[in-house]
Amino acid sequence: MRRTISSTVYFTIAVLAVDPLTARLSPPDYNSAPPNLSTLSNSSLYDTWRPKAHVLPTYGAIGDPCMHYTDPATGLFHVGYLHEGASGATTSDLVTYEDVNPNSEPFIRAGGINDHLAVFDGSVIEQGINGTPTLLYTSVSYLPIQWTIKYTKGSETQSLAMATDGGRNFTKLEHGPVIPSPPFALNVTGFRDPYVFQNPIFDDVLKSANGTWYTIISGGVHSEGPSIFLYRQYEQDPEFQTWEYLGQWWHEPANSTWTEEGWAGRWGFNFEVGNLFTLDSEGYNPHGEIFATIGGEWSYAPIVPQVSDERDMLWVAGTQNISKDGNLEFRPTMAGFLDWGRSAYAAAGKELRASSAPGQNSGAPDRFITYLWLTGNFYGTLAFPTQQQNWSGSLLLPRELSVGYIDVVDNELSREKGSWRIETEHGNGTLTLVTLHQEIARETVAAFKSNGTSQFTQAGGTFSESKALDRSPSSKHYVLTTTLTFLSSSRNNTNLKAGLKILSGAHESTTIYYQFSNESLIIDRSNSSAAASTTPGIPTDPEVGKLRLFDVPNGSNGTSIEALELTVVVDGGVVEVHANGRFALSTWIWSWWEDSRDVGAFVEGAGESGVEFGDVEIWEGLVDAWPGRSA
Amino acid sequence: MRRTISSTVYFTIAVLAVDPLTARLSPPDYNSAPPNLSTLSNSSLYDTWRPKAHVLPTYGAIGDPCMHYTDPATGLFHVGYLHEGASGATTSDLVTYEDVNPNSEPFIRAGGINDHLAVFDGSVIEQGINGTPTLLYTSVSYLPIQWTIKYTKGSETQSLAMATDGGRNFTKLEHGPVIPSPPFALNVTGFRDPYVFQNPIFDDVLKSANGTWYTIISGGVHSEGPSIFLYRQYEQDPEFQTWEYLGQWWHEPANSTWTEEGWAGRWGFNFEVGNLFTLDSEGYNPHGEIFATIGGEWSYAPIVPQVSDERDMLWVAGTQNISKDGNLEFRPTMAGFLDWGRSAYAAAGKELRASSAPGQNSGAPDRFITYLWLTGNFYGTLAFPTQQQNWSGSLLLPRELSVGYIDVVDNELSREKGSWRIETEHGNGTLTLVTLHQEIARETVAAFKSNGTSQFTQAGGTFSESKALDRSPSSKHYVLTTTLTFLSSSRNNTNLKAGLKILSGAHESTTIYYQFSNESLIIDRSNSSAAASTTPGIPTDPEVGKLRLFDVPNGSNGTSIEALELTVVVDGGVVEVHANGRFALSTWIWSWWEDSRDVGAFVEGAGESGVEFGDVEIWEGLVDAWPGRSA
Repeated sequence: MRRTISSTVYFTIAVLAVDPLTARLSPPDYNSAPPNLSTLSNSSLYDTWRPKAHVLPTYGAIGDPCMHYTDPATGLFHVGYLHEGASGATTSDLVTYEDVNPNSEPFIRAGGINDHLAVFDGSVIEQGINGTPTLLYTSVSYLPIQWTIKYTKGSETQSLAMATDGGRNFTKLEHGPVIPSPPFALNVTGFRDPYVFQNPIFDDVLKSANGTWYTIISGGVHSEGPSIFLYRQYEQDPEFQTWEYLGQWWHEPANSTWTEEGWAGRWGFNFEVGNLFTLDSEGYNPHGEIFATIGGEWSYAPIVPQVSDERDMLWVAGTQNISKDGNLEFRPTMAGFLDWGRSAYAAAGKELRASSAPGQNSGAPDRFITYLWLTGNFYGTLAFPTQQQNWSGSLLLPRELSVGYIDVVDNELSREKGSWRIETEHGNGTLTLVTLHQEIARETVAAFKSNGTSQFTQAGGTFSESKALDRSPSSKHYVLTTTLTFLSSSRNNTNLKAGLKILSGAHESTTIYYQFSNESLIIDRSNSSAAASTTPGIPTDPEVGKLRLFDVPNGSNGTSIEALELTVVVDGGVVEVHANGRFALSTWIWSWWEDSRDVGAFVEGAGESGVEFGDVEIWEGLVDAWPGRSA
Repeated sequence: MRRTISSTVYFTIAVLAVDPLTARLSPPDYNSAPPNLSTLSNSSLYDTWRPKAHVLPTYGAIGDPCMHYTDPATGLFHVGYLHEGASGATTSDLVTYEDVNPNSEPFIRAGGINDHLAVFDGSVIEQGINGTPTLLYTSVSYLPIQWTIKYTKGSETQSLAMATDGGRNFTKLEHGPVIPSPPFALNVTGFRDPYVFQNPIFDDVLKSANGTWYTIISGGVHSEGPSIFLYRQYEQDPEFQTWEYLGQWWHEPANSTWTEEGWAGRWGFNFEVGNLFTLDSEGYNPHGEIFATIGGEWSYAPIVPQVSDERDMLWVAGTQNISKDGNLEFRPTMAGFLDWGRSAYAAAGKELRASSAPGQNSGAPDRFITYLWLTGNFYGTLAFPTQQQNWSGSLLLPRELSVGYIDVVDNELSREKGSWRIETEHGNGTLTLVTLHQEIARETVAAFKSNGTSQFTQAGGTFSESKALDRSPSSKHYVLTTTLTFLSSSRNNTNLKAGLKILSGAHESTTIYYQFSNESLIIDRSNSSAAASTTPGIPTDPEVGKLRLFDVPNGSNGTSIEALELTVVVDGGVVEVHANGRFALSTWIWSWWEDSRDVGAFVEGAGESGVEFGDVEIWEGLVDAWPGRSA
């Protein structure tokens, strides 16, 4: 939410926050058309679209996820997020969570000498000062801050706080910021969201002592473009008082992009929430390939002060070298969207070791887990009836990131510059591509499938037109999987649309479909919510993501189009669409009517040959991620 | 007062400050022995020792002078000083002053985002942002700060404020500090008191554009010693947002000294209040010799945390060169005390142009004018009955600084490393020495002599023992001048003491005398105040300064000892002793009795040959520096 930072928005959130105990009134009548929802009493919509299996505070607004860490004392994973400062919860399984404080009260608040106005994102050195989890965060003294306006000197500094009381509080250290300003004489567009890490590759190339801490800070330079600034713990100071600037680790020209073909959004004008980590095919590996996730802020021309029309949540992989001027510089080798949803942003990840409580409970290897934010009012710009809901926004489900491989036919499709790179040319007409592999965390999905209230399967088949499922889910909380297989001829069928219809009933429906015409997976929200026509702030525009279904080898010398493997999570108003382990598109669907629960196959323009659907499996109920919260 | 900075002291001053309207009670009876003064009612001692011709606020404590400037719009000279933040007054003649705000209320107060706790010294760019006087000052966020303790990161930063309303307010700019931290990775002992200047010599040697602004910042490095840090306005930014660090312009080893013979105190462990300027024999000259005034903080062993036993208010002249590592480095060629009084400190000067109102009124050329602080309670460490006085401390009279020349005999005395250097060796047994010349500002002295209530002269003579003047001043506000001439044999007379007895009566007296045995001018305060025996916080220890009276040519091949030319200003409790245009010793004399007004010659151990006193001239009444203040 801090992204829009008009003071009005800030105030609205603050007002929200003081109303935790508002009685929840009798629910609205979902069997008749909605009124203008903003006329309803406060909190009356609390339950309407509330997810149950996602991370969000008990009430009020959630902002960026951040400050995650594994507590070395307990092995529990702490998941943090901005909320009246920053709040958090612990988890031993990435399934259920426990608030670190009652009512999701924050473990750190704005208001100190360094952060008069706000606490922005930070990250945690798990064994920091005196071996205690130590937070490096952006302390904010002046607002507004935005890449479209003049940067206010001193508005963003980086300060320290230390965990006390098992992380229920992070106590600010009684001194000034440890990174008190952007690099000398740089006219920055932003300078925030420090992301700390240790890495032996960096130690080697930078001739640092083993185990040196680094931090990147996200931002950019006016009229030059977005940047990631690299800092190093100075002389291994165990109190992390001094950080040495090592230059712009990564810089892109303003408003540029990895590819104008749209596979990886735009770098924009300012980076935010940069994370830097190394992956292999299993997950986190200190010696693995270098990845970053970043938020790119940009706007369509003409640029309007204090407006970011778009915020692209991107991932990037690449290599680094010492430049002529002695700085370590990163160059991308591939890039893509971490999530294509226009409300999905601000991913914050952390390595989660096999030795952590979640790791031990699931048997997973060292992983890199990331959470995204799904803003509930498009970064504060929508007049969503937030008072009626008494909460705003959610995190998305935790995702495991790793290096993914795809064996494909060697053709123009696979050789295009996209969100993949060629790992191996086999010389036999096939290639192995590499991309970022991402999945909902294994134990989260497993819990949805094992702990739900019911499970049923609709047999698949080849459909040339849409077809409802025989059985509908009884609620709006479920996970669904299916696979669509297209004929090779489909690639040139500009009329073809195929996918799923969900949250469908007499008055509303939402369509999730793939079309080859622009290689996009689309969530059509035009008829998703009856409330959209009565209530401001409920958008109906489609969500669109690009996904290339490659040609893949199929038997001896045959080829076929890679199948579309869909996983859809519906959790109240949150809909997450995951595909093929490398695509995610998440958004809000504010379906109103009680009967908007039907699921079906959606097919248009397929002709008689149709589209082959695998079984549609549905696991209902998900899990209550917050068993410790009172109802 | 900020020098001691126990929070207790800080609080005391704050309490004082809220009591401006306390009725002044009937004065104590100065014709009987004093009680314990701390038992008297608040404000009852307001008038007792209050100076009338000096700069001090209407009530409350005064700290360092600072932030002086000539307003380009009016030509008036603004004299600033710390007081509930910083307050100031304007003057057109260095004689009378007008508070910029009623009741000496401050033009800047602590309490902003950058200076939560305190505003420390700063200096003014007279035609700064938008041509408006612009203040660069130390904004304080954490206390305590002291060279004896660990430096709190971020405690001192340098921020901007702009004059509004003719300087009645300096409005802080709505952004963070423009110098947000000490130089990278330096473990400083202090980092404060920015002193801005322009100088063509610096422009040349540093290859800066003409008219570039510089600032020095005073401080030091733990275990290394005191330093002056040099910064340059970056790319002539007219908004002074960015200052480029150019290295340690001057550094001295910890606890070192110009000479162990005591001519120039000790550099100590931390510099404060550094001023940098260029002088010639007339006064201020941009192309003149480089001088600095600095405060050196140090202590006798063992060093006690948060204690500076001594603060030496020093001057230094020298040369500068580009060092091997490319920094501009200063090396002293001579150094001395600007004032030897242990309570005299924190000199703050500014060039005062011939074109200014004082310059035009007096016809004086471009000058460098400095004011010192005379702490009223030894930097907050004395339990002086401050509540009873309802004010504490004063500035000393303004002084003109210039390059001074002395023609002397070429001998061991003149060739010693001292507070002078050899300018010319004439090859005829004489040398011309150079030193810092300092005098009370010409118009101040002239006003004392012309505007006083009465003037009288006591004829001089050769006295072999002490001798009272026939006529005593009728008050404790006057200026006195006389000259003592010693026989050449006096230099070896270890018993000789000669000078003046002042503020003398049946119960009290103060002796100001010179002795050759250690070439010192001494103010003996052992019998100065009857209150000292009843009341804590009234010290009786002597004040001591070193002054060499050189052998000087006297007629054809004859030599004699340079005469001791004394100017003594008594203004209530403030006593300033100036000698030979190159020596000053100022202190408090808290004489109590009404009859302690006698003045006389003081001679001991002179033998029959005695000491020759010139006429003793006394101008009574001085001036009321504050005609606009209500009584």
